[in-house]
Amino acid sequence: MTLATMQWIDLRVGDILTFAAENHGDREVVTSTGAGRVRRSYSDVYNRARRLSGGLAAAGFKAGDRLATLAWNHHRHLELYYAIPGIGAAVHTLNPRMPATDLAYMVDVAEDIALFFDSDLAGLAQEIAASCTRPLRLFELSDAEATLNGAMPFEALIWDSPGPADWVPVRETDIFAICFTSGTTGSPKGVAYTHRSSVLHAMAGCMTEGQRIGGEETVLPVVPMFHANAWGLAHSAPMAGAGLVLPGRWLDGPSLLNLIKGEQVSFVCGVPTVWQGILDAAGESPDFGSLKRAGIGGAAPSRAMLMQLESAGLDVFHSWGMTETNPSAGTGLLKSSHRDEPLEARVDRKLGQGRPVFGLERRIVSDCGDPVPRDGKTPGRLLVRGNWVVGRYLNADAGLEDGWFDTGDIATIDQDGYMVIVDRAKDLIKSGGEWISSSDLESRALSVDGILQAAAIARPDEKWGERPVLFVVCRPGFAVETEQVKHALAEQLPRWQVPEDIHVRDALPLTATGKTDKKRLRSELLALLADRQFA
Amino acid sequence: MTLATMQWIDLRVGDILTFAAENHGDREVVTSTGAGRVRRSYSDVYNRARRLSGGLAAAGFKAGDRLATLAWNHHRHLELYYAIPGIGAAVHTLNPRMPATDLAYMVDVAEDIALFFDSDLAGLAQEIAASCTRPLRLFELSDAEATLNGAMPFEALIWDSPGPADWVPVRETDIFAICFTSGTTGSPKGVAYTHRSSVLHAMAGCMTEGQRIGGEETVLPVVPMFHANAWGLAHSAPMAGAGLVLPGRWLDGPSLLNLIKGEQVSFVCGVPTVWQGILDAAGESPDFGSLKRAGIGGAAPSRAMLMQLESAGLDVFHSWGMTETNPSAGTGLLKSSHRDEPLEARVDRKLGQGRPVFGLERRIVSDCGDPVPRDGKTPGRLLVRGNWVVGRYLNADAGLEDGWFDTGDIATIDQDGYMVIVDRAKDLIKSGGEWISSSDLESRALSVDGILQAAAIARPDEKWGERPVLFVVCRPGFAVETEQVKHALAEQLPRWQVPEDIHVRDALPLTATGKTDKKRLRSELLALLADRQFA
Repeated sequence: MTLATMQWIDLRVGDILTFAAENHGDREVVTSTGAGRVRRSYSDVYNRARRLSGGLAAAGFKAGDRLATLAWNHHRHLELYYAIPGIGAAVHTLNPRMPATDLAYMVDVAEDIALFFDSDLAGLAQEIAASCTRPLRLFELSDAEATLNGAMPFEALIWDSPGPADWVPVRETDIFAICFTSGTTGSPKGVAYTHRSSVLHAMAGCMTEGQRIGGEETVLPVVPMFHANAWGLAHSAPMAGAGLVLPGRWLDGPSLLNLIKGEQVSFVCGVPTVWQGILDAAGESPDFGSLKRAGIGGAAPSRAMLMQLESAGLDVFHSWGMTETNPSAGTGLLKSSHRDEPLEARVDRKLGQGRPVFGLERRIVSDCGDPVPRDGKTPGRLLVRGNWVVGRYLNADAGLEDGWFDTGDIATIDQDGYMVIVDRAKDLIKSGGEWISSSDLESRALSVDGILQAAAIARPDEKWGERPVLFVVCRPGFAVETEQVKHALAEQLPRWQVPEDIHVRDALPLTATGKTDKKRLRSELLALLADRQFA
Repeated sequence: MTLATMQWIDLRVGDILTFAAENHGDREVVTSTGAGRVRRSYSDVYNRARRLSGGLAAAGFKAGDRLATLAWNHHRHLELYYAIPGIGAAVHTLNPRMPATDLAYMVDVAEDIALFFDSDLAGLAQEIAASCTRPLRLFELSDAEATLNGAMPFEALIWDSPGPADWVPVRETDIFAICFTSGTTGSPKGVAYTHRSSVLHAMAGCMTEGQRIGGEETVLPVVPMFHANAWGLAHSAPMAGAGLVLPGRWLDGPSLLNLIKGEQVSFVCGVPTVWQGILDAAGESPDFGSLKRAGIGGAAPSRAMLMQLESAGLDVFHSWGMTETNPSAGTGLLKSSHRDEPLEARVDRKLGQGRPVFGLERRIVSDCGDPVPRDGKTPGRLLVRGNWVVGRYLNADAGLEDGWFDTGDIATIDQDGYMVIVDRAKDLIKSGGEWISSSDLESRALSVDGILQAAAIARPDEKWGERPVLFVVCRPGFAVETEQVKHALAEQLPRWQVPEDIHVRDALPLTATGKTDKKRLRSELLALLADRQFA
């Protein structure tokens, strides 16, 4: 066999920013600082990131090291996103909404040796440093001096840098970033992204049938850089020469709406809670200015929310992913032949979890592992495969058995590739030998006027094996009766699927990534049932 | 170091068609047969290609083999594009516009063992088979029986197939296609594309800032599948779920215009000659139906042509590439901030060779190899690098010296990344120590009313070293005087750049890929000068 004759150029994250600086050097990266805004260009970000790499190397950091960040979405975090991989090290993003003990555990598992933190998170940083087993060098992401005792000012790394460093020629299979799963199922597990995985993921993000990030977009990722790479937008936006607007820690509706209008943002990505805030801030006759597209993920939005957004002229991009899939695992775009359907039909399609994008394969299988039909009806366990899918968790001894990652979700797929996640496998409720979908119960409960949030879990039942229990939270100013909800459900569902137990709560427990914490709901319920038993 | 934890999935061309069949199974692939059209879907193409792979394996072909095609753009050629790599072999596309002896040479170099040919090319196929050194198994791409003695009917491979073959799990660095350069400079050289190079090239083609191929497009590649992979459209269209319309051998303007309108084509890609045919067929007040975008490449179009197309409401996508770059080496899209410029400004920008796309780096250097400024003015020798750039020609002993491929072009690049190719390095004319750009002379000559084609070359000159000689061809019905051309050039250029020798010809010699054959022009000129000397 003759050897192949095309060049081999390792796919590297750093080349994305180099490309942006060379070809979109004046495109802006704007960060909100609450009161004002910091304006940078891709050239600035590139030049500062290269100086920062020089400073990191001078400070003794080297290829193979893991450096943690505890920060909101802003320009310094973006610089670290490129400067740390630039020296061949990995950036480990920590979620400031998690408890210090959990974060210290992650720092230990990842073997981090430094922590870069925002000033408003100094207390948490200090707690983490005190709790983890190895010493952590602390760098404060402040404008000038550090406020925390024992921390170095971040800017000193740039001032004192011996100069811009040439970025290390890593291999594409090298790790450049680490993120832990949110731990809704068991203890958090580390996913280590490679240059290859994130470059291919960003290319898919820039594809017309992917996230469709192009140079005409100005993207505002409310989705955090501290979790799952802000959906890859910190890579796909510079790759496309798109503008980037970073909200800092000002994530409330009015601040975001102000930022959208002030910076001519065209595409915002956030979880449903963020969108609820924006919608509330926009009021009755919403004016979103330049905004064209609404990216939603992380949790399932309600039908009402999609109706509101689409009615206001926004093109909703609802898709699905996981920490384990870098995180985008498909596209939220409708097929071109479905884009002109009437509002209701469009919203129905968009309520699902989207279509696949080339590079990430989806498969649904039965409990025995056999493929189930792609008819849009038959649910199966969702398996995924691709270059941006985890093969082995950080420090795990073994990888996947058969090359497919089991998402733990139950989904249907139709012949156009549209997927609907029916439930998390572990959240399915088995009553009298039949499955009840908890997410179906929840979305039906959400369609009741006055209901803001809903969560369904199973309780053990002597007769039926399991029975559903539904928790709901009312909108402010509403007082919905449980009988009303039960009545509404009974109108839509077979009788055995309607929960006998419906509870109104003030709030639902949430995980650090903003999802309903069903683990906690279950243990609370079990404690309650035990109390009753002994009462 | 912990091992990387993301999956490794080899990038494979076959996965593109599998993806299309699974997710865009009913999207059409239409082929013109002159009188009628053959309608297939991506599902059909996938199913037939897999059966064809089974048939090829049953016929004794195996991984590592090279199988040649001599065919126009049609569904059977597309099936071969996937079925041959599907068994781990390579498809070597031959250009039917080349002489049989050249093609036999290529068949020998590539070590082809079979030839799949269109019925109307049977004579040429026979000549090739007679001229090459090894025996060639012949397969005729006919509807039923073979017309050529000794040839097998192609369809028999599918009828007699033992069944759909599972495609061979090749490595991404394996060769899957071979194409020879057009040989405008020296003898043709083989470029062997790998699965990795073409998958990444297709992903770039689907990027919003690349060729922007999306599911909403219906693409008509007039650019041939027999040369440089039809700009990668046979891969990017199914990757995006775009419709594909193949023109067969009916490449005249009226046939194409008919096909565009009949099949609701949105994007046509062709060389300037093809566009001239379409424009002529469309007449004074052109109606292009559903057509939105005009892809132009392979040779530089005239300003007049771009004005005509853009004035008719088409978005011109003029970009640049080479057989050695898979072939797309950039994007013909303007930056979003330039898309709303007035017509004249837009056309000026589009006359250049476009912007880079992520994944292919461009660099311009001086004769000493030092980078020259990216100021849009300073010309330098154009070097390129990337995963879809040739690293070593087929059977060559050595690869590139420093990892960059020297295109042999002289170009300027500006700070937005727009490139303008000033000339081929070897076509520059050095007169009195100063460079004269032959392509600049040509484009100015083309702006003279009544001039259809122009070519400038150097003649040796005792006093100045070299002097330019210009050949022009008049439009039908026009008779332009050489003095008129000289006068027009003298108004725009410094005196020393204006050629003393201008010749009107009936036609220019062309290479098999439709470019002006300057090699032949030069040898004709030298023969003429020698005659004069001895006269």
